[in-house]
Amino acid sequence: MQELNPHISVDCVIFGFDGEKLKVLLLRRQYNQFNGGNNQEYDYKLPGDFITDEEDLDSAASRVLHELTGLSDIYLQQFYVFGSPARISSERDLNWLRKTTGLPVERVVTVAYYSLIKIDESRREPAEKNNAGWFEISAVRELAFDHTDILKKGLHNLRTKLQYEPVGVQLLPEKFTIRQLQNLYEVILGRELDNRNFRKKVLKADYLVALDEKEQGVAHKPARLFRFDRKLYDDRFNRFEGFQF
Amino acid sequence: MQELNPHISVDCVIFGFDGEKLKVLLLRRQYNQFNGGNNQEYDYKLPGDFITDEEDLDSAASRVLHELTGLSDIYLQQFYVFGSPARISSERDLNWLRKTTGLPVERVVTVAYYSLIKIDESRREPAEKNNAGWFEISAVRELAFDHTDILKKGLHNLRTKLQYEPVGVQLLPEKFTIRQLQNLYEVILGRELDNRNFRKKVLKADYLVALDEKEQGVAHKPARLFRFDRKLYDDRFNRFEGFQF
Repeated sequence: MQELNPHISVDCVIFGFDGEKLKVLLLRRQYNQFNGGNNQEYDYKLPGDFITDEEDLDSAASRVLHELTGLSDIYLQQFYVFGSPARISSERDLNWLRKTTGLPVERVVTVAYYSLIKIDESRREPAEKNNAGWFEISAVRELAFDHTDILKKGLHNLRTKLQYEPVGVQLLPEKFTIRQLQNLYEVILGRELDNRNFRKKVLKADYLVALDEKEQGVAHKPARLFRFDRKLYDDRFNRFEGFQF
Repeated sequence: MQELNPHISVDCVIFGFDGEKLKVLLLRRQYNQFNGGNNQEYDYKLPGDFITDEEDLDSAASRVLHELTGLSDIYLQQFYVFGSPARISSERDLNWLRKTTGLPVERVVTVAYYSLIKIDESRREPAEKNNAGWFEISAVRELAFDHTDILKKGLHNLRTKLQYEPVGVQLLPEKFTIRQLQNLYEVILGRELDNRNFRKKVLKADYLVALDEKEQGVAHKPARLFRFDRKLYDDRFNRFEGFQF
């Protein structure tokens, strides 16, 4: 066991798409477990912990996520650092941190990471074993520490990113319909999009390739299938001519 | 004087445009000044320092930039955290840090900020008073610490951002020609862009508004002037319909 550095932590905002809804992975925190208080009092927090002095930040984020939720092989990306001197100031939060770590915790600067993954069986089960669970974004209320702010900022970043990167295509089947892609976008953005405009944009994006195939076994008129061409997409940066917007 | 926190620092990558070239603000570091060595030995570093325990990260970045370079009222934006355990490991760097601060420096996680400003007289002079200077990006060689990596990452972020935000318009006069805008883009990207395609994109962007005016006092055929409409641009997020690219 390597020593923890009580000045710097990582927190992970793991967004999950279950085919219908956008969710976030949260851990239950029994904040009174050391106070002789009611053991059943709890709230929720993001998976996060202090880094050790020997690891870099990305490794710390992967390790902490794995230790706390059982999840591994998740592509985590730094998105913001939260460092207000007052971000951990309530007695409840300070006490809980000091008691669980045994460290003289004062100010903690936390590096926030996020990821957007598909929730399948392999990602549902580990979480449940670890007192973690997937919660619908729109149902999340006040979290521990400043984690509500971290979640909000993460969601804002994800939505902004969606404007210029097809961040979600890896959550869809390899071949997908425009309707499926639009659903995914609507779920992440939390609002409806205009069907005709969305369709127009898809048809204009050369890296979304129309296939000579239609969906099968549907009650309605079968729609054309598309695939995402990673190489064409990656080439965009080289072909960039001054504005994409 | 408030106490410094030797675990966390901020570093500022200040990009400047002087109307022709892209530059970066660097400080001269006399790395042997405490070693009884040659006082004239120096290299260059980004403006940066430890935070104090009472300030948040954004305030720290502004304070440090002001103290070291005299610059103020600069909009600084976090872009990445550098936290490799080995990022400050050379004797030269460790010694210099310990001697200049008097602190038991070990591992330092640094939060990197950047900004893109116009270099005018008010921003040339303070720098020169403070042993700081504006250096052409393409001429920058190895910097102190891991500052070469930080600069590279900052430049990469700036260039990526340029793809989906008109990051540079505030560096141009209020009314500008397409040629001026394209020059700015070419300087930031470090390569030439296709004139016709660039022109087409500008004409398509509704927030770049063509004026009923042409440039004056030029030897060549006067070109039409444009202005940037901040409100139209900001509305884009609300009008977003699934793809901008």
